[in-house]
Amino acid sequence: MEALRASGRKVLFFTNNATLSRRGYLEKLRRLGFEAEPSEIYCSSYAAAAWLRGRVAKVYVVGEKGLVEELELAGLENANPDEAECVVVGLDRSLTYSKLEEALRCLTRGALFVATNRDPTLPTERGLAPGAGAIVSALETAAGREADVVIGKPSTYMYELALMEHGIEAATALAVGDRLDTDVEGAKRAGIAAALVLTGATGLRELERARVRPDFVLASIRDLFERSREGGAA
Amino acid sequence: MEALRASGRKVLFFTNNATLSRRGYLEKLRRLGFEAEPSEIYCSSYAAAAWLRGRVAKVYVVGEKGLVEELELAGLENANPDEAECVVVGLDRSLTYSKLEEALRCLTRGALFVATNRDPTLPTERGLAPGAGAIVSALETAAGREADVVIGKPSTYMYELALMEHGIEAATALAVGDRLDTDVEGAKRAGIAAALVLTGATGLRELERARVRPDFVLASIRDLFERSREGGAA
Repeated sequence: MEALRASGRKVLFFTNNATLSRRGYLEKLRRLGFEAEPSEIYCSSYAAAAWLRGRVAKVYVVGEKGLVEELELAGLENANPDEAECVVVGLDRSLTYSKLEEALRCLTRGALFVATNRDPTLPTERGLAPGAGAIVSALETAAGREADVVIGKPSTYMYELALMEHGIEAATALAVGDRLDTDVEGAKRAGIAAALVLTGATGLRELERARVRPDFVLASIRDLFERSREGGAA
Repeated sequence: MEALRASGRKVLFFTNNATLSRRGYLEKLRRLGFEAEPSEIYCSSYAAAAWLRGRVAKVYVVGEKGLVEELELAGLENANPDEAECVVVGLDRSLTYSKLEEALRCLTRGALFVATNRDPTLPTERGLAPGAGAIVSALETAAGREADVVIGKPSTYMYELALMEHGIEAATALAVGDRLDTDVEGAKRAGIAAALVLTGATGLRELERARVRPDFVLASIRDLFERSREGGAA
């Protein structure tokens, strides 16, 4: 990271996860030994709030504290189900039937339906756990309609928001990620070159069978630094 | 009901709902002024237990007491997520994220996935609430696969189970219900004549636009008695 920054490149962080706020991810990055500015962090909680700001005033949240925090920072009111103009759905590990019921009441009334992401699962120490996408599916089935907006990758919104806020041209950017169906797919749709790292969710076998093709394949994130010294994306 | 029974016809009751057991529905019918035998009640809790008996021994239940009761009556053990061979999903108004997580753990391990029904919603005094189908969708999305079996209508299983247990020929039966997509659709698939009553979920307008055609349309359940006196289904 330091080498990339020292070379004059901006480094931004993206996650579909909406359970933490920018501040929360900053702390998490620090614990992992990475320094960053809040403005360099694109989590779907922040991006959902950015998308909603100016569009609605009152929201009903199915999600965790970080999502609520970002929505409040954007001036949105955490409203009761009879007043909310929009339902925002993220991963909620305190989900209850009552929350689904209240969210459905908003949706039946015609409230906007915003999904932070469609990730079906998330990895935990005990194995895969249901992701925000599972909760979104439950509400889509009950409401009989699809979410109006999906903020997280492979939607292009988070990438486009970051390019806009940092004044970056898509053609000079490189997206690095370990998932073909979100990181790489979203980047390609946004006109951004994509590098797949093989140290995460995707192995060589999946890559060979995949429909989505990254522009670069990196055995490890270290290769990024090697390649960046040879010149390339800003 | 009495007139139908007096004419020598069997009267059976069907519901996709799995929150109560046969005993529970019997009590409910009694409170509404109807007498019935347990063997005349086909709720998806009983039918799911009938389907599972002999197929598996240990189940993980996402559902309410009535479903657990029927499974136990069928000799199935309510097991922990690391031992269950099957996940049975019904409406669960005490649903929590932890239950979804444990159910997913079973499904990831390859457990059989049985849905009591796919009803997207159920009517309540406060409006529509999420049905079992919403919970099934959440788990299908997380597990990345569809339920292996759906017990409730429009699946034919409950109708076929009832015909078999009561020794009735499909051609001599009449299914009466207020929903085209479950009651009528399931009956037609099972080779049973279907009558739609217009006093419930379906009005004349929906009927005109519908793909599924009932054999009879009744303004009210009273018409059934008038028609039955003229002769017809057993």
